[in-house]
Amino acid sequence: MPTVPNAVLFTKEEITELQQELGRPSLMGKSLQDLIASTDAFISQPIEVPGHGEAGGYEHNKHKQNYQFINQAGRLFLVTGDEKYAQFCADLLSAYADKYLQLDFHIQRNTNPPGRLFHQILNEHVFLLYTSLGYSCISHWLSAQQRQHIIDGLFQPMLDMFTIKYDFDFDRIHNHGLWAVAAVAICGVATGQDKYVEMSIHGLAGDDEKGGFLAQISQLFAPSGYYMEGPYYHRYAIRPLCLFAELVHRYRPELDIFNFKDQVIGKTIKAMLATAYPNGVFPALNDASLTMDIKDAGVIVAVSLYAKHYPQDINLLGMAKIQQQVWVNSCGLALSKAYEAQSVPMPFWPSVELNEGPNGDRGGQAFLRMKNAQQDISQLAMNYGQHGMGHGHFDTLGISFFNNGQEVLREYGFGRWVNVEPKFGGRYLDENKSYARQTIAHNLVSIDSSCQNDFDVALADSRHGTPHFFSGDSECVQGVSAIAKEFYPGVNQQRSVLMIKHSELAQPLLLDLFKINSDVPHQYDYALQYQGQIIRTNFDYQTHPVLETMGDSAGYQHLWNVAQGKTDQHACVSWLQGNSYYTWHAACHGGDEIFFTRTGANDPSFNLRSESGLVLRRQGQNTLFANVLETHGYFNEAIEASTDARGKVEQIHIIGSDDTGSVVAITGNNINLIIMVSNVEGVTPDTEHQVEFNGQTYRWQGYLAVTEQRVK
Amino acid sequence: MPTVPNAVLFTKEEITELQQELGRPSLMGKSLQDLIASTDAFISQPIEVPGHGEAGGYEHNKHKQNYQFINQAGRLFLVTGDEKYAQFCADLLSAYADKYLQLDFHIQRNTNPPGRLFHQILNEHVFLLYTSLGYSCISHWLSAQQRQHIIDGLFQPMLDMFTIKYDFDFDRIHNHGLWAVAAVAICGVATGQDKYVEMSIHGLAGDDEKGGFLAQISQLFAPSGYYMEGPYYHRYAIRPLCLFAELVHRYRPELDIFNFKDQVIGKTIKAMLATAYPNGVFPALNDASLTMDIKDAGVIVAVSLYAKHYPQDINLLGMAKIQQQVWVNSCGLALSKAYEAQSVPMPFWPSVELNEGPNGDRGGQAFLRMKNAQQDISQLAMNYGQHGMGHGHFDTLGISFFNNGQEVLREYGFGRWVNVEPKFGGRYLDENKSYARQTIAHNLVSIDSSCQNDFDVALADSRHGTPHFFSGDSECVQGVSAIAKEFYPGVNQQRSVLMIKHSELAQPLLLDLFKINSDVPHQYDYALQYQGQIIRTNFDYQTHPVLETMGDSAGYQHLWNVAQGKTDQHACVSWLQGNSYYTWHAACHGGDEIFFTRTGANDPSFNLRSESGLVLRRQGQNTLFANVLETHGYFNEAIEASTDARGKVEQIHIIGSDDTGSVVAITGNNINLIIMVSNVEGVTPDTEHQVEFNGQTYRWQGYLAVTEQRVK
Repeated sequence: MPTVPNAVLFTKEEITELQQELGRPSLMGKSLQDLIASTDAFISQPIEVPGHGEAGGYEHNKHKQNYQFINQAGRLFLVTGDEKYAQFCADLLSAYADKYLQLDFHIQRNTNPPGRLFHQILNEHVFLLYTSLGYSCISHWLSAQQRQHIIDGLFQPMLDMFTIKYDFDFDRIHNHGLWAVAAVAICGVATGQDKYVEMSIHGLAGDDEKGGFLAQISQLFAPSGYYMEGPYYHRYAIRPLCLFAELVHRYRPELDIFNFKDQVIGKTIKAMLATAYPNGVFPALNDASLTMDIKDAGVIVAVSLYAKHYPQDINLLGMAKIQQQVWVNSCGLALSKAYEAQSVPMPFWPSVELNEGPNGDRGGQAFLRMKNAQQDISQLAMNYGQHGMGHGHFDTLGISFFNNGQEVLREYGFGRWVNVEPKFGGRYLDENKSYARQTIAHNLVSIDSSCQNDFDVALADSRHGTPHFFSGDSECVQGVSAIAKEFYPGVNQQRSVLMIKHSELAQPLLLDLFKINSDVPHQYDYALQYQGQIIRTNFDYQTHPVLETMGDSAGYQHLWNVAQGKTDQHACVSWLQGNSYYTWHAACHGGDEIFFTRTGANDPSFNLRSESGLVLRRQGQNTLFANVLETHGYFNEAIEASTDARGKVEQIHIIGSDDTGSVVAITGNNINLIIMVSNVEGVTPDTEHQVEFNGQTYRWQGYLAVTEQRVK
Repeated sequence: MPTVPNAVLFTKEEITELQQELGRPSLMGKSLQDLIASTDAFISQPIEVPGHGEAGGYEHNKHKQNYQFINQAGRLFLVTGDEKYAQFCADLLSAYADKYLQLDFHIQRNTNPPGRLFHQILNEHVFLLYTSLGYSCISHWLSAQQRQHIIDGLFQPMLDMFTIKYDFDFDRIHNHGLWAVAAVAICGVATGQDKYVEMSIHGLAGDDEKGGFLAQISQLFAPSGYYMEGPYYHRYAIRPLCLFAELVHRYRPELDIFNFKDQVIGKTIKAMLATAYPNGVFPALNDASLTMDIKDAGVIVAVSLYAKHYPQDINLLGMAKIQQQVWVNSCGLALSKAYEAQSVPMPFWPSVELNEGPNGDRGGQAFLRMKNAQQDISQLAMNYGQHGMGHGHFDTLGISFFNNGQEVLREYGFGRWVNVEPKFGGRYLDENKSYARQTIAHNLVSIDSSCQNDFDVALADSRHGTPHFFSGDSECVQGVSAIAKEFYPGVNQQRSVLMIKHSELAQPLLLDLFKINSDVPHQYDYALQYQGQIIRTNFDYQTHPVLETMGDSAGYQHLWNVAQGKTDQHACVSWLQGNSYYTWHAACHGGDEIFFTRTGANDPSFNLRSESGLVLRRQGQNTLFANVLETHGYFNEAIEASTDARGKVEQIHIIGSDDTGSVVAITGNNINLIIMVSNVEGVTPDTEHQVEFNGQTYRWQGYLAVTEQRVK
């Protein structure tokens, strides 16, 4: 087919098709309208090529905007034919070509080599990628002299820098490496130098093993498609991945890239999307912001790409419903048309367990989802996979929970104010290590006021959680269970979390059984991170007249001990978050103590957010924490409405627990549940269980069982 | 004109007109659709008449829903003709008539007498008002026997209770009194007993002075229309006021109610609306929630009523744009039609000073507003009026500030979780007195760690602020100044607050000159309540390893001293709130100290929200606090964008201040402002000022002057 001269990702026919969407109310029509509005606003300003600047500072932002709008304007020139877009690209690219080689390299600040525009070449890769795409759309409009000037002054020096000067950083198996190879390949096509396509696909060594795109996508993802650094980094890596895949599809059709390695590209896109909360925000697994969502540019590209090259999936169209935007390209057009052809509901992704590791045998990540009568989706995420390398948090068996449009058991996310220049240039802060990555900052048990694997990254990377069971098909009861051995010396932890629907309740219950076996006694801190206002408790506690920290290391030094109280038998704490009430019930032992905490201690520069948490502390050796979280009622202060502020669950009670199983009772207003959960390693759906506690025998088959005893 | 038999607020013609809006995309069409959807959902459930319950509890909520849906269903019967609505009203009203007299009176809990359904008769008034309205729409459809049963079993006992048993509470001059007379008058019309209309309009004594609607609306509002308890209580009082006014208009046209007392009804509606922030939320002046807004049912009624009976005002239509709802009635129809007839922009209310007191001579409330190039409105509210009686906060000269869609210098609001039953039945909490109403909880100066007027309500009610000047017409510079004498013994305080536009800045600067003269030295705490994360400061401070309170009384006992640092000359503190950066600059003296505080100390039941504040502490006698707040930059974590995190203002400097005037300089990046503000009591726009500081003479005419010195 005849292509536009040099346009990397557009054919003439595709452009004609896109032109028909101008002014239409389709997703593509809206995306074009947005693109035009933002581009017109930017190109109405004088062009400016600044020098070096701080990460997050003015110059940094200006370079970012410049590459972004070169990319946008290039595409708009093709779609609208308006020469002002070509002129803008030409002027700005020429200005860069004038100046680029006069700029020195930045001073190296981190492990990433410095560029001439940015403090790290990662940003310079992104610059090359987008300016090459934009250039490729207008190069046929330029004079030969203009083209040569831009190539000689800008593109070729960048290509040389990436592939020669920093060759050691070029095609390594890492998410940054994807940007490098995508940028070089795209610039190769744009400047008519096929050798760069070749080395980007197959690696500098040409062996498809040590580097290059094929090696990267073969090795970076688990068979499930999960990316070990978590969705925040996944969505960043997916952008160059998809752009490069589309290039390979067009220029190396013989590689059949979308079927490559058992459709790894489609699989990893779906795995990434399957982690998202129902509102499209990604859970902050490992170092991550709390707000990154599927409207990110990379996810926009990925959903569009999937729609064009893989079978239709209604949940994928549902993601486009949240995004309200498509990639302006033939992939986005395919998505826009599919979306327009039907009534698309909000997405409801099936519950899924995503395995980790190159062979899928290094633990996993579980995502359980249930929808209630009001179409609200509750989502549990549980981590029992790999550590996540330098960005890994020490939270194996940690959970987060979402419903009613908000994260309820929350992640703290990273200790970083991304791109906020006065906050250490927007880079990671000391508190990321001293608090955010520590076990106590998450929703799980910390032992002896210390961190899993003693905050040793190498040790943590050598370990992973072990799946015990996963049951995500039922509409009424779902569950996941996993084991973490030796994350603390001599300690074996098993966590089983269930979501249970009940006819009396508006939302599923979240049952959490955290079982610990140890060879010696320890102090166990079962921690929950919540948001909102405490409404009531069923036990006495004392707020402290003077605040001290919860400890002096492992993140405890950042927690104020706001209040504490002793509990036995049964404790409950209710809080109000947004429009919902939540009540947490815990089966307690004599001697248990509950602490109300708040972050912010030992934080000399106000780097931490002030957030609230609960810690249930128990001295013990072998123990079971049995807790249930009820979501109930409604509060709307603006209209002064409040209903069911107390909830219906009254108690959780441990009937018994041994190596075969744990049996607990949840009782309340017309609620009388008995829940049985398997503790048998290697349990299958066929495994028969029988346990006897207090003279009563409990039998069930498979992972778990829930029965309701009607009160006489 | 022929009316529907007994329908209090509907004629046949009005109903016919309303019917034509069914299914239309007009505001009335949408309001009808919403009314039908919510009513249909409610009446599909079995009817239920519960007994007594806690405030905010299940029974309380059910009674509220019942009266609300009787009112809604009655109107829908008239508009749709569907008998299911009449049947629902008939069944539920009959069930109440069966049960009402069998219910005992509640036990008295507060100063308000108890009812049979509710813990205070205020709620019972509301019940009678709405059920009477609903009944009046369906009574012609009932049999005579049914009508008699409802009157004998429900309405007449209520009328007797309100006008005989609790006659002392019936027509008093108080916002609760408006509900009483409106309910009794409406029930009077609905049951054909004109005597109740008469006593409600003119009072039990019939003298239009001691009580009754005319006396109430004559005495409750200042000439400006302001209501001394503030907008939160105003919007609650406005609902019965408007319903009753519409009744008087229909049944006593000779009173010409909408022109009564210099159009007090129209004036008080506009005064209430003029207090609202640009997003429609009311500033929390005095005891108030932070979320009450113009979508409140009373404000919906008021805006519709105004649209029918007063000249058209584009800002009123702008309020309907925010409300997206009208009162389902002929008033709402008038509003809907006016709204539909033109393109309505978002409201931009003019800056206004609302005087207080029956004669308008007891201080006032200032609302300054400026719109920037991006159409964002900055709003300053400053209080120098009356105390507000039992709901009054001790914050004369206090300010709040709003821009970029959020409250920036914030009000704490009331210490109450309204209708949250486990929080003391949703009633006011102890912390309302011990913290929320104290001076230190607001944005102004507290002296010697104590409260204005020593937290003595009677003393505070006897005083009021004194207007000094108000200048709200300019698009570039606006200002307000007021004086508070003897709010602390021997201390005279004058606060002047200006909003200043500058070509270098995206938003107006907020300049605050807080001048204090005293006969003896004191400790002055200039306090600001902010939200968000501290980004940077220009001075060293120490965060405390152990947190202690800021004091032991006057609200200080609830503030943790999180960090503190000494400053001299010039201090700045930047924070990030939502998508905006804010930087506060203060001209400091040697010895000044800044504290970072957080609420939550001495709060044994977690009744307070955890919120942040700043205190600039100075030891002195006569002093001037000169501060400026810059709004700058943009942050969006989800797309990882941050611009201008540091702002352009660099310094504020006091050139001099005496009894004639204060002169300050604000300097920064291309900013070089000199601001002169009058301190002359009785200043007029013609007053000439001349002051000399450091050998330099400054001259200006009128309240204030701003000049810019271009840097050479």
